[in-house]
Amino acid sequence: MDFKASLSEKSKYIEEKIRIFAPKEEGYQKSVIEAMNYSLMAGGKRLRPILIMETYRLCGGKDDRFLPYSIAIEMIHTYSLVHDDLPALDNDDLRRGKPTNHKVYGEAMAILAGDALLNHAFQIMLEGSLKYDKPENSLRAAYEISKGAGIYGMIGGQVVDVESENKKIDKDKLDFIHLNKTAAMIVGSIRSGAILADSSEEKLEALSNYANNIGLAFQIIDDILDIEGDEKILGKHIGSDIDNEKSTYPSIIGMEESKKIAKKLIENAKSELEIFGENAEFLTNLADYIIARDK
Amino acid sequence: MDFKASLSEKSKYIEEKIRIFAPKEEGYQKSVIEAMNYSLMAGGKRLRPILIMETYRLCGGKDDRFLPYSIAIEMIHTYSLVHDDLPALDNDDLRRGKPTNHKVYGEAMAILAGDALLNHAFQIMLEGSLKYDKPENSLRAAYEISKGAGIYGMIGGQVVDVESENKKIDKDKLDFIHLNKTAAMIVGSIRSGAILADSSEEKLEALSNYANNIGLAFQIIDDILDIEGDEKILGKHIGSDIDNEKSTYPSIIGMEESKKIAKKLIENAKSELEIFGENAEFLTNLADYIIARDK
Repeated sequence: MDFKASLSEKSKYIEEKIRIFAPKEEGYQKSVIEAMNYSLMAGGKRLRPILIMETYRLCGGKDDRFLPYSIAIEMIHTYSLVHDDLPALDNDDLRRGKPTNHKVYGEAMAILAGDALLNHAFQIMLEGSLKYDKPENSLRAAYEISKGAGIYGMIGGQVVDVESENKKIDKDKLDFIHLNKTAAMIVGSIRSGAILADSSEEKLEALSNYANNIGLAFQIIDDILDIEGDEKILGKHIGSDIDNEKSTYPSIIGMEESKKIAKKLIENAKSELEIFGENAEFLTNLADYIIARDK
Repeated sequence: MDFKASLSEKSKYIEEKIRIFAPKEEGYQKSVIEAMNYSLMAGGKRLRPILIMETYRLCGGKDDRFLPYSIAIEMIHTYSLVHDDLPALDNDDLRRGKPTNHKVYGEAMAILAGDALLNHAFQIMLEGSLKYDKPENSLRAAYEISKGAGIYGMIGGQVVDVESENKKIDKDKLDFIHLNKTAAMIVGSIRSGAILADSSEEKLEALSNYANNIGLAFQIIDDILDIEGDEKILGKHIGSDIDNEKSTYPSIIGMEESKKIAKKLIENAKSELEIFGENAEFLTNLADYIIARDK
């Protein structure tokens, strides 16, 4: 099976599990649960949940204790999109071809549904962990996810991104945005999977470096695709960064240099996996997939 | 020392600790941290953090492991107020006599600051717990707080409250709102404090019943004060529930019956404390304070 087919199969597996873990649409509070599930089921690559699953398995995890964490990280990713789309932030009407949450349920409900997704993420991680041994690993894994999602991670990156709109910023600040807005949740996913499997500190360190490298590379490729991508394949208009005078890797250090750095980051990421030998095939292929992606 | 003085002393103690636990206002993401701390430091009775502290001590807890939980529950309470005040929800300009978060920092930042407070609450509970033994208790205590704050607790109550505006609702639905919007976080606070102290199931059960009773009584008194309260003492206009055609305890079952039920709930709450003997003095006085309060 080629890598894309394998990725899509894993993605389908996670979708099924999301359906099982999603709160039931019942009770007086049914409407907010419907709004949560609407965005949670709206598709996507499910990359973060897959990363938790894969690193858990790679580090020797045998049971399903990673699952509540996989579902939780997707709930956190989803809430960030729901709030990002609000009129006060990006004011987007469409997300993945479907009306955004506030377009369907109204702004008040979209705010509450986002809050509910974030809170429920922690609720299912904590509840799920009560059934398993090694509670110290569960605490630490949930902590890694909270760190990746918070002010020293995703939210920190979002805030600086919002404040940098229509402004020239330097490479240091752009790296801060990329590393926090995107890479931090990838780092959190990968670290939590490894910790749940009782990984050695050495392997955890290697995986963290891998995660930071692919996370930053992912964002640089995003910047590049917004200039050189194929609109038909991407499924969205290109050139929006230039139209919005957004500082990007190509605008700050040039296109050739950006490509060189992305390639180097992917090489570095893959070299971190040597400690795992051929067991790390999925993560190696994922790194190659990120640099070669056209959407 | 009388009860009000003791409450105010405990509240000051918590304030000091909030100051220590609050994230430092530095780094590229400084603005969102300022917005978080603005609302976190804006005063209030700090009732929920005090409840965690008091039940932890009552159940025999000796160290300070309850503190991250106390700070966390106040961060969750604060985020809920920040989001509640947003234009899409209650559209309030003032909170405790100060401009609301979005009035000072703008709507986008208020949304992100609320998200950040909720996420940071879990981050400090989880991080704080890593330093202590009995991680299974920490997991369970954090779970209780997530449950009290989520769709089967506070958010669930908020949603039904928002949807019931200008509508006649029955007592069953009103109880749902009161029990979830207010009582659930009080239950979560009290249960987490007891669990962190390794409480017996019997004591945990008694404290949960106490919490539910004072939580519901608190809301009924709120309904009553909105009719019979003294505007000067309350510091806000009365009659807003009637103006907004809001269903309340007095409007559904009458004023005399409402007072009778509130009194009965407080009696029930106090009788649950018998298992603790005179050690439960604070919680007993708190129950009396809730029924006698004039603001």
